[in-house]
Amino acid sequence: MSQQPELLKTVCDHMRHAALLQSVADTLEWDERTGMPIKAGEYRATQVSTLRAMTHSHLTDPRFGEWLHLLSETTDQAEPHCDETSLVRELVRDWQRNWRIPVDLVERLSAATVRGQQVWDEARKSDDFSIFAPALEKIVSLKQELGMHLADGGDPYESLVAEYEPGAKVNDLVVVFESLREPLVALVAELRDAPRQPNVSILQREYPIEDQRKLSRFVAESIGFDFERGRLDETSHPFCTSLGPHDCRILTRYGSNWLSGGLFGTIHEAGHGIYEQGLRETWHGLPPGSYSSLGIHESQSRLWENQVGRSLPFWKWLYPKAKKIFGWRLEDVSVEDLHFALNSVMPSLIRVDADEATYNLHIIIRFELEKALIGGELQPAELPTAWNEAYQRYLGIQPPSAASGVLQDVHWSAGLFGYFPTYTLGNLAAAQFYAAAEAELGNLDEQLEKGQFQHLFGWLRRNIHCHGRNFTGAELVKNATGSEMAPEPLLKSLQTRYDRLYR
Amino acid sequence: MSQQPELLKTVCDHMRHAALLQSVADTLEWDERTGMPIKAGEYRATQVSTLRAMTHSHLTDPRFGEWLHLLSETTDQAEPHCDETSLVRELVRDWQRNWRIPVDLVERLSAATVRGQQVWDEARKSDDFSIFAPALEKIVSLKQELGMHLADGGDPYESLVAEYEPGAKVNDLVVVFESLREPLVALVAELRDAPRQPNVSILQREYPIEDQRKLSRFVAESIGFDFERGRLDETSHPFCTSLGPHDCRILTRYGSNWLSGGLFGTIHEAGHGIYEQGLRETWHGLPPGSYSSLGIHESQSRLWENQVGRSLPFWKWLYPKAKKIFGWRLEDVSVEDLHFALNSVMPSLIRVDADEATYNLHIIIRFELEKALIGGELQPAELPTAWNEAYQRYLGIQPPSAASGVLQDVHWSAGLFGYFPTYTLGNLAAAQFYAAAEAELGNLDEQLEKGQFQHLFGWLRRNIHCHGRNFTGAELVKNATGSEMAPEPLLKSLQTRYDRLYR
Repeated sequence: MSQQPELLKTVCDHMRHAALLQSVADTLEWDERTGMPIKAGEYRATQVSTLRAMTHSHLTDPRFGEWLHLLSETTDQAEPHCDETSLVRELVRDWQRNWRIPVDLVERLSAATVRGQQVWDEARKSDDFSIFAPALEKIVSLKQELGMHLADGGDPYESLVAEYEPGAKVNDLVVVFESLREPLVALVAELRDAPRQPNVSILQREYPIEDQRKLSRFVAESIGFDFERGRLDETSHPFCTSLGPHDCRILTRYGSNWLSGGLFGTIHEAGHGIYEQGLRETWHGLPPGSYSSLGIHESQSRLWENQVGRSLPFWKWLYPKAKKIFGWRLEDVSVEDLHFALNSVMPSLIRVDADEATYNLHIIIRFELEKALIGGELQPAELPTAWNEAYQRYLGIQPPSAASGVLQDVHWSAGLFGYFPTYTLGNLAAAQFYAAAEAELGNLDEQLEKGQFQHLFGWLRRNIHCHGRNFTGAELVKNATGSEMAPEPLLKSLQTRYDRLYR
Repeated sequence: MSQQPELLKTVCDHMRHAALLQSVADTLEWDERTGMPIKAGEYRATQVSTLRAMTHSHLTDPRFGEWLHLLSETTDQAEPHCDETSLVRELVRDWQRNWRIPVDLVERLSAATVRGQQVWDEARKSDDFSIFAPALEKIVSLKQELGMHLADGGDPYESLVAEYEPGAKVNDLVVVFESLREPLVALVAELRDAPRQPNVSILQREYPIEDQRKLSRFVAESIGFDFERGRLDETSHPFCTSLGPHDCRILTRYGSNWLSGGLFGTIHEAGHGIYEQGLRETWHGLPPGSYSSLGIHESQSRLWENQVGRSLPFWKWLYPKAKKIFGWRLEDVSVEDLHFALNSVMPSLIRVDADEATYNLHIIIRFELEKALIGGELQPAELPTAWNEAYQRYLGIQPPSAASGVLQDVHWSAGLFGYFPTYTLGNLAAAQFYAAAEAELGNLDEQLEKGQFQHLFGWLRRNIHCHGRNFTGAELVKNATGSEMAPEPLLKSLQTRYDRLYR
């Protein structure tokens, strides 16, 4: 018992070194995606894989396992969510997870997914699913195998979901997603046929990218992204990455004829970044200073993007600033018309371009299909048909090609099964958090209209960010909102907003 | 003997791993100087020092010493400059150099120079040399100690110069620098009093930075910097760094009221970059694929910057392009007037802003002073007076303050004694290389006027770049030009150019 503090320090230092190596590799990857010379790719891959291998061998050092074992025997379990107990619990969980997987399976999966992404890319370019089918079959079967090792007698798909959303139960997801799905299908159909429709062409005028950059930076800074501890850059596929406790990089993509892409990309990534910047520095690289789950991470981006960024009060605040920046381009546009355009709902084929109402239907389709693939109820060869049927059923549209249908996302080719549902979990949690924050903080609309984001920001800091991985996503939702995760807050928020716009 | 190829491979792999770790640290430092968030510095320092320590312990692994020992015993010495012989010779040299230095001296030097730079910064801001004096005294005494260990009975200052310019002899430098100094002093005095003077204000018009970027990139690309294997960015102190065999980063700094700073910064760094891009990939991270010396590196940047970039034929080619980019700003300026402005000579206080003729006088002053400091003939406390006297003697001006005099450069505070002379070695070699290339390739003026840089580029590839560290700087000069390094080519090139302009 007396050695416990020393042992804890040894374990923390060991982990911090792994985190440092990881952050270095992440920096190289950030650089790779922000303008690295085209021919530098091969050496960069060697640099990154060398660092990843060093991290891996550091994390699987048998001594580390012994320390963790000793530590878990002597850790006080009275307060399961305090920092030290959580630290040990989560590290042991990660350790056991790693040791459940046979080394050769890791290697086979890695080879299959590298190949899978190449073949997927080829198939998409040729618009031919059959090119991808054999690789997908291989990946599905390896992921089934992985799921069985991880599940240890339980549901393989559930164990794959838990890789991204620890503690999530597939049956709960089924119930929540089904009770979300039918009202969304009805809502989307209703809005599609509404006589009053937004003028989306407002967003398609020529908006100089230099001006869009100004607006994006202004908004990111205003909602609380700290530019002394982060930066905003551009890339082809926006993302957010943390390269140290005070170095969060967010990236967006501008189109000169598309006002909302760059701006909402920024707000979304800034939401992720604000979460990362809210993790506690003292626990950097350790579970109490890490994000809880992908669903919670996505809830932070979606809350700022949708609950805040697509609201009328927010635009009442931002509109005069936007007008100043873009000048004549917005001269003839009222804030109400702009806000309506930014909330246009229309069934479409591509997930990443989908609006807030249809987005979750894209996810539910993927969730249902991947669950059936891993469960063995659906064969990879049957996927295109099942995909198209689901799009017809839920969105009322048919992909004219595999490229704009079943082949649009990289995820499955990269072995990411169980990842898609975290997007919708994020949307659900975002609405639920926002409603709870509003109940506690009073009239948020008024605050947004004045550009006062600090109370909402503080609520997120207190209820989500500071807890790191001490709680699961479901526990954070319960603690912060008083209720289990449910579809009602999201449905209510959508219905209220669209009612005002479309009726 | 039969194990030799295997041993060679082991040694190369060992070195390549060190080079990889080094390139990763270099990437982090590049990022640090191109917009890293301000508060990320502390963690970044930890990342870099961790990687540097890993590299160091890898390179001082006793097994590596044993391999090198075995290898040097079995290496064929018949061709001393072939790749394998050079590889072994240079690695053994580096190894022996590292083992000559007591570990505690490395630590004391590191502490003294970290402190030295802080105190120097403070002294410069307060314009008070006495704040810096005690730290400088400490550094000088430690560098004397280092020099004695490295010199092993020889001249300590010479061994410090050899850290940057292997094989250089101080007596040779004294002779060459002295025969350069007097003609330069006379030339500068003559030009200062010449009745015809350039109109420098041409360069101080408002040149939009976006336009300067275009021009800089165009020029860098035209002279042969490969943007598929490199990129051009901006920073406060321009530099060039290679992050892999196909990843050379050059950086410049633009001022909106100063046309030549950003452009000549780019040409200079592109010259360094072209050298790095010309090193052989197969030997990446090993002596045959590394630069020969700092003097040779500087010769490559100075050749493009001064021999090419400040010539009239070059501007006859570039001027119409510049006019297209800058429009009315150059409308009333003839190419001759622009060229004259770019070749203005005027004694000034600050080395980094000096013109081509006075630049080497700034260096010679530093060379003479640091040689006396390390030799013990000059005490650090006497430095300001000696500095001011030298400026009066060679440049005819007196620094009004320590900040614009003896405190202007960071080098000595960072322990860089023996570094300054490589700048002038670079200028001398640049002129000598250019003259030899012209003798071989025919009329280079005609080629420059047509924007044909490929023959000169090819000459440098064949005579300098491809040889890596297989030859010392002095050997490369001798082989490529047929003569020992001498002041005449530089003096001749300056006199010819200024004669046409000032008379």
